[in-house]
Amino acid sequence: MESTDSNNRVTIVGGTHGNEWIGAYLVKKFEQIPHLIQREHVEGVTLLANPLALAENRRYIDKDLNRCFRREDLEDLTISSYEENRAKDIAEMLNLGEKSKRDWVIDLHSSTANMGITIIPVNDHPVNLQLAAYLCSINPLIKVYRWHGFEQEQSCLRSLCSWGCAIEVGAVAQGTLDANLFRQTEETVHAILNYLNIINSETIPELDYPLIIYQGIEAIDYPRNEKGEIQAMIHPQLQFQDYHPLHPGAPMFLTFEGETIAYTGDSVVYPVFINEAAYYEKGIAMCLTQKKRYEIRSVRE
Amino acid sequence: MESTDSNNRVTIVGGTHGNEWIGAYLVKKFEQIPHLIQREHVEGVTLLANPLALAENRRYIDKDLNRCFRREDLEDLTISSYEENRAKDIAEMLNLGEKSKRDWVIDLHSSTANMGITIIPVNDHPVNLQLAAYLCSINPLIKVYRWHGFEQEQSCLRSLCSWGCAIEVGAVAQGTLDANLFRQTEETVHAILNYLNIINSETIPELDYPLIIYQGIEAIDYPRNEKGEIQAMIHPQLQFQDYHPLHPGAPMFLTFEGETIAYTGDSVVYPVFINEAAYYEKGIAMCLTQKKRYEIRSVRE
Repeated sequence: MESTDSNNRVTIVGGTHGNEWIGAYLVKKFEQIPHLIQREHVEGVTLLANPLALAENRRYIDKDLNRCFRREDLEDLTISSYEENRAKDIAEMLNLGEKSKRDWVIDLHSSTANMGITIIPVNDHPVNLQLAAYLCSINPLIKVYRWHGFEQEQSCLRSLCSWGCAIEVGAVAQGTLDANLFRQTEETVHAILNYLNIINSETIPELDYPLIIYQGIEAIDYPRNEKGEIQAMIHPQLQFQDYHPLHPGAPMFLTFEGETIAYTGDSVVYPVFINEAAYYEKGIAMCLTQKKRYEIRSVRE
Repeated sequence: MESTDSNNRVTIVGGTHGNEWIGAYLVKKFEQIPHLIQREHVEGVTLLANPLALAENRRYIDKDLNRCFRREDLEDLTISSYEENRAKDIAEMLNLGEKSKRDWVIDLHSSTANMGITIIPVNDHPVNLQLAAYLCSINPLIKVYRWHGFEQEQSCLRSLCSWGCAIEVGAVAQGTLDANLFRQTEETVHAILNYLNIINSETIPELDYPLIIYQGIEAIDYPRNEKGEIQAMIHPQLQFQDYHPLHPGAPMFLTFEGETIAYTGDSVVYPVFINEAAYYEKGIAMCLTQKKRYEIRSVRE
């Protein structure tokens, strides 16, 4: 297929984390049946981001690949762990630069938290929010999340492109597949490709959707002792309750001795990434969000 | 506490697999509050079996520790991976020999499969089946499973002792804690200690329980291509349905292309360890069992 638009290329990325199998296996499927990700005005390409970690069924070999994409790190030739080198290769593959910044990226992740199907826009650009609103309109179960930390976001693979999103699905254990979540992830990818096909064909649909964004405000760590050892677990009433309101005074943790630790904030929040396996080492038991409503209208850069 | 009985010592083992945290953290709790596992006629001791794997949050470093306990391997000084050496140390700690064979072991595991609380007796000795029957009588949700392979069983840590069981709990993702399963595991350990205290006090209770054992008959692998790559996932109708009947012709797998693969056996079976993360590399998608009923009466060796 010839490129006819400046922003018709979509890179579908799986295996950025080697033990998140749904995205990796979906990318393998697309590699084998490439016509699935082609549209009249969209050229889908695939990328298995961390093949060595995937082969070893680990999140990463030396360093979390999805924290290796800060511009200064990509340009720093003195850092060269497996993932840091891989990040440089991927940036080159995606033709880092003004042109490729107009390409789209869909980075496929999974979580042990009950994230359902979560869209994480690359940034706040109206085009990305419009895509998110479109996806929510065709599947009201989809949630939209934004990180609270700009710095964290700039180190992600998806920051290589100005347009697109990550898809975070769960709950699924690391190193396993889940057929329902696999199907829902694939359906979401197809919905994105179809939507991009529409907007690339110049027949921009009339869009006037309300969009709910769960805006990250704070990461909460587990209670720990002076040695850094965890002293409590996610409270059973909070486990798997991602995106549900958490009220001041509600149970948050349960110590190993059976004592409840309550949420001490003074306003309702909506925790996500509750009990994500990969975040224990990052000191994150959950991310608190605020629920914000946006009016999204048809826009085009 | 003085040893007053030949079989009053119970070793509670956690972290045999370093990414199965419930058992490891429960053992850490018992280490800090040791009176919790003492009874008048029972001396509870703890063992963190694979501390290096636990620190690295991996099932094992070089080799699955729970396959390193074959007698001939323990006596073979030429094999010396981390886990093989660790197995020799553990065998020595447990005083491998005729006397210690009369000690009890409780080896704590967790699974990404929906195993609930599963008791796996060390062997078919009536004393072990009697314990299992007792546990089922006080918690009817407890299931009892027996491996189908004698050889596999002989390589497990629990084979060091003649008496005791493994406890397998799930579903829980590797490298995470689950407060409900933690509590249920602890309650089951306490029930075992209480029961051993009763039988060690010579006041053997009248027992006449029916015992249902899910007897393993066959391990089923995922459909794979000639390269060994997985071609299908657990069918959504079977996911998390451990211990439920699987009828001939019922859906078993779903290929990535969406084709259902049915169970082709000619009798009803009860799959367990469905979608256990650690068993992908062992070529096991699930273990099929038959449901067998035993009458258990009060026995003592």
